[in-house]
Amino acid sequence: MSEEKSFHMTSKAFRYYGRAVVDWIADYFDRVESFPVLSQVKPGQIRASLPPAPPLEGERFESILEDVETGIIPGVTHWQSPNFFAFFPANTSGPAILGELLSAGLGVQGMLWATSPACTELETHVLDWLVDMLGLPPKFKSDGTGGGVIQDTASSATLCALLAARERASNYESNNRGCDGRLVAYASTQAHSSIEKAVKIAGLGRQNLRLIEEDDRFALRAEVLANQIQQDRAAGFIPCFVCATVGTTSSNAIDPVTEIGQICREQGLWLHVDAAMSGTAALCPEYRYIHAGIDMADSYCFNPHKWMFTTFDCDCFYVAEREALINTLSVLPEYLRNKASESGAVIDYRDWHIPLGRRFRSLKLWFVIRHYGMEGLRYHIRKHVDLAQNLAKWVEDDHRFELAAPAPLNLVCFRHLAGDEFNRKLMDHLNRSGEIYLTHTTLKERFALRFCVGQTHTEKRHVYQAWKRIQEVALELEKS
Amino acid sequence: MSEEKSFHMTSKAFRYYGRAVVDWIADYFDRVESFPVLSQVKPGQIRASLPPAPPLEGERFESILEDVETGIIPGVTHWQSPNFFAFFPANTSGPAILGELLSAGLGVQGMLWATSPACTELETHVLDWLVDMLGLPPKFKSDGTGGGVIQDTASSATLCALLAARERASNYESNNRGCDGRLVAYASTQAHSSIEKAVKIAGLGRQNLRLIEEDDRFALRAEVLANQIQQDRAAGFIPCFVCATVGTTSSNAIDPVTEIGQICREQGLWLHVDAAMSGTAALCPEYRYIHAGIDMADSYCFNPHKWMFTTFDCDCFYVAEREALINTLSVLPEYLRNKASESGAVIDYRDWHIPLGRRFRSLKLWFVIRHYGMEGLRYHIRKHVDLAQNLAKWVEDDHRFELAAPAPLNLVCFRHLAGDEFNRKLMDHLNRSGEIYLTHTTLKERFALRFCVGQTHTEKRHVYQAWKRIQEVALELEKS
Repeated sequence: MSEEKSFHMTSKAFRYYGRAVVDWIADYFDRVESFPVLSQVKPGQIRASLPPAPPLEGERFESILEDVETGIIPGVTHWQSPNFFAFFPANTSGPAILGELLSAGLGVQGMLWATSPACTELETHVLDWLVDMLGLPPKFKSDGTGGGVIQDTASSATLCALLAARERASNYESNNRGCDGRLVAYASTQAHSSIEKAVKIAGLGRQNLRLIEEDDRFALRAEVLANQIQQDRAAGFIPCFVCATVGTTSSNAIDPVTEIGQICREQGLWLHVDAAMSGTAALCPEYRYIHAGIDMADSYCFNPHKWMFTTFDCDCFYVAEREALINTLSVLPEYLRNKASESGAVIDYRDWHIPLGRRFRSLKLWFVIRHYGMEGLRYHIRKHVDLAQNLAKWVEDDHRFELAAPAPLNLVCFRHLAGDEFNRKLMDHLNRSGEIYLTHTTLKERFALRFCVGQTHTEKRHVYQAWKRIQEVALELEKS
Repeated sequence: MSEEKSFHMTSKAFRYYGRAVVDWIADYFDRVESFPVLSQVKPGQIRASLPPAPPLEGERFESILEDVETGIIPGVTHWQSPNFFAFFPANTSGPAILGELLSAGLGVQGMLWATSPACTELETHVLDWLVDMLGLPPKFKSDGTGGGVIQDTASSATLCALLAARERASNYESNNRGCDGRLVAYASTQAHSSIEKAVKIAGLGRQNLRLIEEDDRFALRAEVLANQIQQDRAAGFIPCFVCATVGTTSSNAIDPVTEIGQICREQGLWLHVDAAMSGTAALCPEYRYIHAGIDMADSYCFNPHKWMFTTFDCDCFYVAEREALINTLSVLPEYLRNKASESGAVIDYRDWHIPLGRRFRSLKLWFVIRHYGMEGLRYHIRKHVDLAQNLAKWVEDDHRFELAAPAPLNLVCFRHLAGDEFNRKLMDHLNRSGEIYLTHTTLKERFALRFCVGQTHTEKRHVYQAWKRIQEVALELEKS
């Protein structure tokens, strides 16, 4: 393209190296089971192999790709291995990767409608689709007072929900006056750490977050919440926000959203529902019960980048009333003014989240939905749930093990009966072997192993082999 | 890979369609000048072409790509056109796009060191490289008390800087107690809108942001800042944070960081320096004067995704003391505990920003630095500055036009002498033509056109032709 001296990659070279990277990724997926799932490097080992100074002269792309293979891959923990059962998944798929590639190639900014109308309109459209796909209440669609937006993560979505709640509770004054130590937020002891992070960031203060006791199934106890709100009001606080979780990170517990929602309605609190991983299950009508009561929520989020085959980052965040959100986040300097925004006929997503700039993330989501169709998505979600349910049965059938929590969907929390120290050893042995990767939690102060089925290519044989290995390693440890 | 029924894209299909997308992008760059730079669609036009309901059955990837061409491209504003002179650039390059592709393919989460050591260590390494590449103070390197991290945008980096400042000023109490309306932040009237957004989000309140008067060159007046801080202290406020800008969005003004830094040192305020676009210029020793005084900054950010050929999102954020930042953002639930974190020997970047999850963004930055080398990066930055300086001369040589602000680097603010209404018309005509895209600002309450040279493939002919068109359209409007 260039008639002048240039160090840019030519169009021809881009085609050539682009194919090389595409093939590298395809090869990577073909051989991903050959790597230890959890990287086995020591701290500092990857850095030690990198040159101390940046190059003065440009290097051949071949050298860069070689260094990926030799210098980077040993330090990769393989989230895309079918033997990855740790944390929650962050799965991906061919169409999502190609959507991300196309987004990088177009390189547009969607901060304002005008800066790329398609970036805004495709996002609004696909997020409206997802309301129907998950059976969410229509108030979250963009044709009324609400609407959806793609955030990077549920952490950011939760923060935005809290900011909107803060605004509403302060009569739209807190963005101007700041916090005064009286606003209080609520979530269960099992809620994600991002709630605490958001409460700190938003200036409410950690001491104004009430973590409500959980019940025997690790779900928030609504009557305790109601009492706490009363106590706080009596003490002069201003209760403003409740985060209910559909599928906690620790054990996949489902908070009683209906009861919580009634309390929030009566008390005038903002209800945010965090269904980061589990929300995807609602693609299948038989799992939609997880969202019972969602019609009382003021905001909701779930992450297609966890369990819906959509490359990170892609959190879908919905509000029933966009006014409070936009009011707290909107700032309009002269250099961003434009006719389309002033007409009121368009959405400017910059006012819906923390960053100003934003990339074309709806492309990958659109690619995924079109590639799989509802049918394909449902098939794979059902399969993951079935695999996890199989595992739960195997755990129950082995007298040495027990389930540590109910397993409603694709996460199984379990433990060996020999106690915390034994279970910790069991996990460390399994993870060090590189054959599988699983993580832990504590439930009622006891250690529990977490086994989450959600990687794109996890099939029956992977879960079966993992369980066999867990049994074998437990047996070895029992003998030692 | 699958022995069971599957709707996933096969490895073979991924290779095939991956090549198709790579070729599509190469073709796009080859023909990008044939599109109107600013999309000419009407609000709702893109949505109207999309099917109202998601597909039940999966579709062929060919159909998806066809719909990109017919349904999406008309709604794209071409940020990667060499005739894009609006806002600040968000440029990209072949190696960056391929780095983003590889990151999507690996699909790792870098929230903890343990969840992919290479994701953390490559990031730390490349951010240390950039300290040397830009001639920044060594205190920003990771081997002391400071360090760098990739954030999505400067908006988020500024928010994190403010949070750290808030912590330090409150004796590390504000994350627990929340804000109390006494903390005050400062920036110039010309500072980016993200400062106001951050002050609102962090609970300080808009009314506790002091926008300090600018001088004739649109830079912050340090003596006014000093007076304001004194007044605020006298009134019982707690001054905590100053944001100085190196290259304002409005006019590329450079705040007097040395004087501001001295005030911050004396008064114990946190100094954040926002060099979002212009920081990249410091790759060239002759432009490093823009960072004079940076050794007094507590934090600093610049965006390789603006002017350093690195696909959005990629903001590099540095702190001299990471303690305050980590203190305010760290939350450690059981399910994220791990031996590596507890050893203290590793960095867990989740504590350095708002989100928990994070993708492998350092890959694209590493690819860019290695592909271009220092030599290639400097060559193209110098070229962009030269092109903008040419334009500034042409403006000065045309008696109908004037510069509206000094043009130190690659942004030229200018106006026709016929007044605001005329200049607005001129801009609208030019943008509607689709030949170029430029935006505006107001400087000393007068309308000014902004012309920023920073797109990867912008060359002399593009700037020359743009100026010719500006002159021609102005002539037409003068006659009408």
